[in-house]
Amino acid sequence: MSVNPLNIIMSPKSIAVIGASNNPFNMGSMQYLTLLHSGYPGDVFPVHPKEETVFGNKAYSSISDLPYAPDIVLMVVPTKLIPEMMKDLGKLGTRHAVVISAGFKEAGEDGVKLEKQVISIADEFNIRFLGPNCMGLLNAQYPLNLTTAPLQTPPGNLGIISQSGTYISQTLPYLGKSGIRLSKAMSVGNEANIDIVDCLEYLEEDDDTKAIGMYIECIRRADKFLEVVSRITRKKPVVVQYVGGTDAGGRSGTSHTGAIAGPDNIYNGLFEQSGVIRVNSIEEVYKTGHVFATQPVIKGKNIAILTNSGGPGTAIATTLDGNGLNVPELSDSVQEKIKKSIPGHASSKNPVDLTFHTDIDLMVNTLPEILMKSDETDGLIVHGIMGTGYAKAFFPAIKRVFDISMEDIEKGHMFNLDKIVKMPSLYGKPLMISTFFGNNDNACSFFQDNLIPTFDSPEKAAHAMSKLYEYFLIRNRPNDNSSIILPIPKSAANIIRSGNGVNIDEFNAKEVLRSYGIPTCREKLVTNYKDAINAAMDIGYPVAVKACSSEIQHKTENNLVHLNLDNEDEVKTACESIQNIISGVPMLVCEMIKGDRELMSGMTRFPGFPPCIMFGMGGVFTEILDDNKIRFAPFGKNEALSMIETIKSHEIIENYRGMDPVDKEALSNILIKLGNIAVQFPEIKEIDLNPIIIQDGKPFVVDALFVI
Amino acid sequence: MSVNPLNIIMSPKSIAVIGASNNPFNMGSMQYLTLLHSGYPGDVFPVHPKEETVFGNKAYSSISDLPYAPDIVLMVVPTKLIPEMMKDLGKLGTRHAVVISAGFKEAGEDGVKLEKQVISIADEFNIRFLGPNCMGLLNAQYPLNLTTAPLQTPPGNLGIISQSGTYISQTLPYLGKSGIRLSKAMSVGNEANIDIVDCLEYLEEDDDTKAIGMYIECIRRADKFLEVVSRITRKKPVVVQYVGGTDAGGRSGTSHTGAIAGPDNIYNGLFEQSGVIRVNSIEEVYKTGHVFATQPVIKGKNIAILTNSGGPGTAIATTLDGNGLNVPELSDSVQEKIKKSIPGHASSKNPVDLTFHTDIDLMVNTLPEILMKSDETDGLIVHGIMGTGYAKAFFPAIKRVFDISMEDIEKGHMFNLDKIVKMPSLYGKPLMISTFFGNNDNACSFFQDNLIPTFDSPEKAAHAMSKLYEYFLIRNRPNDNSSIILPIPKSAANIIRSGNGVNIDEFNAKEVLRSYGIPTCREKLVTNYKDAINAAMDIGYPVAVKACSSEIQHKTENNLVHLNLDNEDEVKTACESIQNIISGVPMLVCEMIKGDRELMSGMTRFPGFPPCIMFGMGGVFTEILDDNKIRFAPFGKNEALSMIETIKSHEIIENYRGMDPVDKEALSNILIKLGNIAVQFPEIKEIDLNPIIIQDGKPFVVDALFVI
Repeated sequence: MSVNPLNIIMSPKSIAVIGASNNPFNMGSMQYLTLLHSGYPGDVFPVHPKEETVFGNKAYSSISDLPYAPDIVLMVVPTKLIPEMMKDLGKLGTRHAVVISAGFKEAGEDGVKLEKQVISIADEFNIRFLGPNCMGLLNAQYPLNLTTAPLQTPPGNLGIISQSGTYISQTLPYLGKSGIRLSKAMSVGNEANIDIVDCLEYLEEDDDTKAIGMYIECIRRADKFLEVVSRITRKKPVVVQYVGGTDAGGRSGTSHTGAIAGPDNIYNGLFEQSGVIRVNSIEEVYKTGHVFATQPVIKGKNIAILTNSGGPGTAIATTLDGNGLNVPELSDSVQEKIKKSIPGHASSKNPVDLTFHTDIDLMVNTLPEILMKSDETDGLIVHGIMGTGYAKAFFPAIKRVFDISMEDIEKGHMFNLDKIVKMPSLYGKPLMISTFFGNNDNACSFFQDNLIPTFDSPEKAAHAMSKLYEYFLIRNRPNDNSSIILPIPKSAANIIRSGNGVNIDEFNAKEVLRSYGIPTCREKLVTNYKDAINAAMDIGYPVAVKACSSEIQHKTENNLVHLNLDNEDEVKTACESIQNIISGVPMLVCEMIKGDRELMSGMTRFPGFPPCIMFGMGGVFTEILDDNKIRFAPFGKNEALSMIETIKSHEIIENYRGMDPVDKEALSNILIKLGNIAVQFPEIKEIDLNPIIIQDGKPFVVDALFVI
Repeated sequence: MSVNPLNIIMSPKSIAVIGASNNPFNMGSMQYLTLLHSGYPGDVFPVHPKEETVFGNKAYSSISDLPYAPDIVLMVVPTKLIPEMMKDLGKLGTRHAVVISAGFKEAGEDGVKLEKQVISIADEFNIRFLGPNCMGLLNAQYPLNLTTAPLQTPPGNLGIISQSGTYISQTLPYLGKSGIRLSKAMSVGNEANIDIVDCLEYLEEDDDTKAIGMYIECIRRADKFLEVVSRITRKKPVVVQYVGGTDAGGRSGTSHTGAIAGPDNIYNGLFEQSGVIRVNSIEEVYKTGHVFATQPVIKGKNIAILTNSGGPGTAIATTLDGNGLNVPELSDSVQEKIKKSIPGHASSKNPVDLTFHTDIDLMVNTLPEILMKSDETDGLIVHGIMGTGYAKAFFPAIKRVFDISMEDIEKGHMFNLDKIVKMPSLYGKPLMISTFFGNNDNACSFFQDNLIPTFDSPEKAAHAMSKLYEYFLIRNRPNDNSSIILPIPKSAANIIRSGNGVNIDEFNAKEVLRSYGIPTCREKLVTNYKDAINAAMDIGYPVAVKACSSEIQHKTENNLVHLNLDNEDEVKTACESIQNIISGVPMLVCEMIKGDRELMSGMTRFPGFPPCIMFGMGGVFTEILDDNKIRFAPFGKNEALSMIETIKSHEIIENYRGMDPVDKEALSNILIKLGNIAVQFPEIKEIDLNPIIIQDGKPFVVDALFVI
């Protein structure tokens, strides 16, 4: 493995900033000033063609003027200057850079050309660079800040990788207000050289980063992403917002699989297979990431709720319940302990609801301790701890009648939170605070300062708790023994490679499946009704007769499929009807598999991704039901089982309404082997196995379409 | 219609507060002080048994001691005193009260008794009251504040009705910080006398209330709620968070319909039928409500996005797209106008993305005007307007090198937002601001002060915009000509009423359906195989033969259904098989309807609700697919059509993959008439019509179950 360029870029001993001037409001200056302010301990060289000094520090007129080759160079200059400067860097001996300047690939054809030029110059000199069109980076531990704004919180344990610069610059004050602390952050821009996978590998090794948050619009190396993230998520949680995937756009509709597998589904499959936790807003990236970075790994799904108000308590319980967690009624013995402390009308069940009360010690010490200590709970959410925030709100009303100062009031709202903030580490369980007061409430800010996550809506605390549980399941998922790729069956190779890029017909498609050991219906290819009748006799009635040609699509809609034929007459009529529509077309006489469920599987390809294998509800309503899962081949049995067991209608696989449970071993074999076919025959563009009919619990592929 | 008691309670000319003392931290005192502080112009009488004065004002020792009967009395006293005080009120002549005290119905058996006692005393004296166990109310316009905290914003146009007191007290500082302004707010507590429907009728008439937000755990008068809210939502939007509905609990599983219709589905049906916008957090109640209260009604779904950063722009576009709105590429002529102003590398398409830039006037004047004025857009979301918030963040870095004050910096960030805040009313289109800076940013606080909603995550602005569009569709929905209830068919009455509470068998169930004109398969009831063969001849092969008895459930699982019988032998064998399992059981010989789709409908009842009619995907996988809609009977054609057209798989109804489009008229007739049956025969507990098979586009009920 080559050395990660971010090792140098994130911890350089010296930095040149090209583009810093004495105007504090241009971007280069902002980054320069932020860098100086960050407490960065290394050498910093402003480079400016005219200025002698920049903000009082000696400026260098050009790269070649620098006293030595700095570890990295930050470039914030007009786009067209970048190629030449990159050359200068190379000559000087600097091997790492950050290119802030925009106007490359994202700006049209000329930009694409320019970007290619920069890439090739960098390659020539072995320069690795972040950007272009990025917003810099920060390393809170070093410290080093090359963004446009100072960090407002102490160093923390959440690493951020973003394809939008905004999310590591404009949002820093927002993070400050929310008490969220970062370890490292990188804006990757156009990823011309260093991409998010490099960033992931860097954060994987960074001991200060306990959780990773990402904003993603596009993954360029999906195969590598899958490999790296699958490894990371067994050690550190990865939270991702992916946008840009709702419009499937002009995808081909030749196969069901192709029609269904839009970008959003494909990315979902990638995230599920690699163990990524997907969220739908940047707020959740930060806040869920913060929870992961600060709270112990959850060990189960039983959550205690402590509240002084029924509404928020119920909202938290409902949200937890809706996300698959439990709010168990506490045992009598735990309730007895609670009842000793609480007023008579309060509830000890869970949520533990004090209703309106004034004994704050109950809420911050006695009850949290009982609830965190109990082995009936795996985590705790508290709503209703109010400090000076409420006092400040009430102050104007009380001030009318009392000569009292805000300070006096505040004194009455000082209470000791030292114990509660230590409970997560003491008991190894997560704690979250729901409060409508922001950090101008002393309790809220104390929680933030002590790394207990606070949320301004009860439902958000519950959502975050459910993400902890989601990660618990991910972390404990079985290892997938990646599929052994079997030798290519000879007949499969013959059929597919003899086609010369022409689609193969249903019979040959199923021959390929059979050669891989995928069960299909029994069938014979015939050209006339007499042979069809003979075939039917061999197979046994009832049978199906279908036109069989690689050129026909939508057989059913075109009346080229006749099912449930019970005798010679019916077979003859069916054959005649088919021949009337397409004279001379070969026909397939198939065993009529009568099953009780229709599933499907398929394969499609998506640029930059390994082959996509889909599994889901099948039959004629496949698209409408839209209940399917995607994984990337090759994969082994555990991954195949996870596809089967996580479709929405997964109950259908089990002993549903007296049906035989589906043989999951056999079904997962179909998926694994379909993965093998996809890997071994890159010339196959798409595959549909639809339907896969379940008869007596066994799966049989009844129709197959290969698009070459 | 009787006069709404809230007319007096929300605008009393005089108030007595029982429970105010000189300790400012008990609840009665807090409410008293808040009331005084609110600027309430009427008479206020503190009542206290011992104190001569309360906070300097003359106190009255008891209700009978009051100088005259005040319009309302606020009661914050020990629970057990309430009945006696309610009597005293009645004797004094006060007819309206607010009972804050808790410890009633919510606190167990004794509380239930006490609450009944209070209700009956109130009834005796014609007293109407809010509560008990509530947190008061506020009328921002009057002004009057009977909660526990001062209002932090000027009067506004959002009315709040909450079953949790917290959401009109603890959250007031939160609303202040968010710039959200209320008109009226009511905490309804246990709803012993006044309930949320009364509150809705009050807000319906209140001209200051333009939108209504609700927190609901339970609706006690669902029929009245449906009537009132259906009317209100044609004039004012109603946003509801409903919690407590995910656990369907111990519902009977006799029918599919009963098993599927848990509280959450039932409430969803109620909300859809009445035009309520359901949200999933209290944050959304407030923020969506604020958008409705401040922004013009949206007129279409084409949204413009203006941003200075690609990430937030893309996130907004993706979220809008995912919620059914459009982000159309702007026409050449509009793009030309935009291009005149923006830098070369910026995008004029939509999102209009300036990327990093410093000309703030572009973002706040020129471009918003072009985008709001254009008839290609129905609304605008702007991300990236930064005022002093960013300056404050950057200040420490600049302060290191410049002797500059924060004030100087702030001066550089003063820009004129007067024009942009007027655009919504000028152009009649909604405007929303996405900003990571809170109200300590001068731009953010200016927007808030001028009633332009601000959001701290781009996705939230997009969500709120999508709610505006949801309301546009609700407001413009066709009026449902409520179903004409036809006379009860005689045979239906005979069959159902002769049963004496015993379930009726499938044949009779379908007889009832046929008497209402609901199409079923042709069928005959027989007792032996010979009659069965004769019946099959009459009906025509193929047929189905099933056991027919009101006592049999799960016919299919018990092998009591034989389908696709083609000849006499098969009919005979089927009959024998059935008789072997249940000797002497009557049998139904049915026309074998071969269709291409299976739908279902059903009826169930839920305490306090009108009869629930369900429609959805049918067949053996009904529960697994879980794709259905609920409405409440009686209803007319528009409502029936909306059920049919809004199931997730609604494409199945259309000309899907060459199938005949379903006759929606015939299908909606089944639903309307099922509603009639439910209304006319309250003794029927549940009905399943499953499956309803579609043959050549026509629906036929093939199996029916009536639970009496």
